[in-house]
Amino acid sequence: MQHNQQILLDNRPVGEATTSNFKLVETPVAALEDQQVLVRHHYLSLDPYMRGRMNESKSYAQPQPLGEVMIGGTVGEVVESRHPKFKVGDKVVGMGGWQLFSVVDGNAAGMLRKVDTTHVPLSHYLGAVGMPGVTAWYGLVKIIAPKAGETVTVSAASGAVGSALGALAKARGCRVVGIAGGKDKCDYVVKELGFDACIDYKEHKDYLSLSKALREACPNGIDGHFENVGGMVLDAVMLRTNAFARIAVCGMIAGYDGAPLPMTNPALILVNRMKIEGFIVSEHMEVWPEALSELGNLVGSGKLRPRETVANGLAAAPEAFLGLLKGKNFGKQLVKLI
Amino acid sequence: MQHNQQILLDNRPVGEATTSNFKLVETPVAALEDQQVLVRHHYLSLDPYMRGRMNESKSYAQPQPLGEVMIGGTVGEVVESRHPKFKVGDKVVGMGGWQLFSVVDGNAAGMLRKVDTTHVPLSHYLGAVGMPGVTAWYGLVKIIAPKAGETVTVSAASGAVGSALGALAKARGCRVVGIAGGKDKCDYVVKELGFDACIDYKEHKDYLSLSKALREACPNGIDGHFENVGGMVLDAVMLRTNAFARIAVCGMIAGYDGAPLPMTNPALILVNRMKIEGFIVSEHMEVWPEALSELGNLVGSGKLRPRETVANGLAAAPEAFLGLLKGKNFGKQLVKLI
Repeated sequence: MQHNQQILLDNRPVGEATTSNFKLVETPVAALEDQQVLVRHHYLSLDPYMRGRMNESKSYAQPQPLGEVMIGGTVGEVVESRHPKFKVGDKVVGMGGWQLFSVVDGNAAGMLRKVDTTHVPLSHYLGAVGMPGVTAWYGLVKIIAPKAGETVTVSAASGAVGSALGALAKARGCRVVGIAGGKDKCDYVVKELGFDACIDYKEHKDYLSLSKALREACPNGIDGHFENVGGMVLDAVMLRTNAFARIAVCGMIAGYDGAPLPMTNPALILVNRMKIEGFIVSEHMEVWPEALSELGNLVGSGKLRPRETVANGLAAAPEAFLGLLKGKNFGKQLVKLI
Repeated sequence: MQHNQQILLDNRPVGEATTSNFKLVETPVAALEDQQVLVRHHYLSLDPYMRGRMNESKSYAQPQPLGEVMIGGTVGEVVESRHPKFKVGDKVVGMGGWQLFSVVDGNAAGMLRKVDTTHVPLSHYLGAVGMPGVTAWYGLVKIIAPKAGETVTVSAASGAVGSALGALAKARGCRVVGIAGGKDKCDYVVKELGFDACIDYKEHKDYLSLSKALREACPNGIDGHFENVGGMVLDAVMLRTNAFARIAVCGMIAGYDGAPLPMTNPALILVNRMKIEGFIVSEHMEVWPEALSELGNLVGSGKLRPRETVANGLAAAPEAFLGLLKGKNFGKQLVKLI
């Protein structure tokens, strides 16, 4: 019998999340029942949405239950199988959670998917060619729906979603302007990811100052925006939108701790006849095949070169997660488990 | 030569608008040139959008120029014509502005439209069967797009737009809940307009209290909302939205004076995967024929019984307009000019 390690949500954050909200436990791996598959995780994905799940308050998903393994995307390898579709050695992506092993029902729809690592490294199936990439694809293609020549902005531009958004928008002939925290990230966004410009929000004390920088970077105004952050960034972008601008709302990371962050000037929704739409990519499974195909091609052809920040070992996950919430990661945040 | 009276925008409001922003002048009516039509106005329409035009700041339309006749919709009668399409005695609707007479180019697209007063009183072409009615139609049909059985809410429910919205939504099998100011208006909304419920926002000191009342009036949550007001009402509605709710933003009257009103909890856009969309009906002329046809039938069949508040004489327009901004009118606010 193999030994598993798991990280549970032990208690809910009061204000800012801390490592004391989590607990690492050791458990045995249960013997497989018929149709089940045992997966050994190679990488665990850390994502901002997990912070929302840690709260008890109403969100788009059920709160993460206390005392249970933290939810999370994983890639790994089948090490034991009692399901005809999966054999030992298969590389798979799934929602295994913050643990070394998971037992998965091989028949459950969408829970475990075999992937090809010939042209795409396994870890990228948690990033550019996974949920974050499809998130960017959905917001850009289905909500922003940009025309060639339009200007599209994205916050958290150096992250897994933002970097995919940039490559997808460039492929559609858009001017793409990122917003990120710090000179290193902005340099990466422009020089490695190929954005037309990137603004360091940390250089701006308020949304009016940030908005002025956006005016310079977007001389023709903003037609589409992909929001990962909210707060000051969204306020600044709204001031620079053109008539009929579309804003896809994917994240409001700045508001997870404590009181909700207001939107300063919602009257701009009317003034600029904007459309603002929130979405969760897991509710739009119908787009995944088309999106993953385009994203795989962008990565395979080198047009999208996603960066990863990798923490080592399951015990490092809580600290790495808290760092992600503060923007300490650079690109996709992963935990290497093997 | 006939004598005209006009109300000009004399100076821009600082904070709240006052009667001293306007100036009444007498002018001669110019002789008609070829293809022109002289219209004697019977009614002038007063609408909240005019307040936005009085400011110099960027809005969806050019600001009202100083020293020129205030913009506004009018209905009246052709009293002189040098255009083959219009003859003396024709009843017409147009954008004649705050004055007794207007000279109109009979060839200008959409500037003057003949109307039939057999089943619909002339004044209603400024309300339920005019711009306010089409505004309600567009927001409901093109943005909210409700299914039968869904719950739709509307602010300023007793007004020209709100009352039309209610009739249109009831015709689509929705539960319709209004929000209005004062018991008289709420009684009218339920008893005469046929809404399922109406909440008096004046009985609530903050958006949380108003939201609690909405929960009782909308036991299945809110699927669609038509926003004429903004501020506390929008905050309260957002708290009660169901997943995939749609909000059509038509007005932000509460924010016209002074500083913009913030939206308290924009994170709900993501949590409830909402779509919020601002629009201006004059940018969607393609829907007018279909909308006016449905609205005319609703009025003709007595399913929509719009109420009017009528001020007498052009000189009364500024005072009536300021009253409208404070919700003193009951239904469509008009000025009778003849």
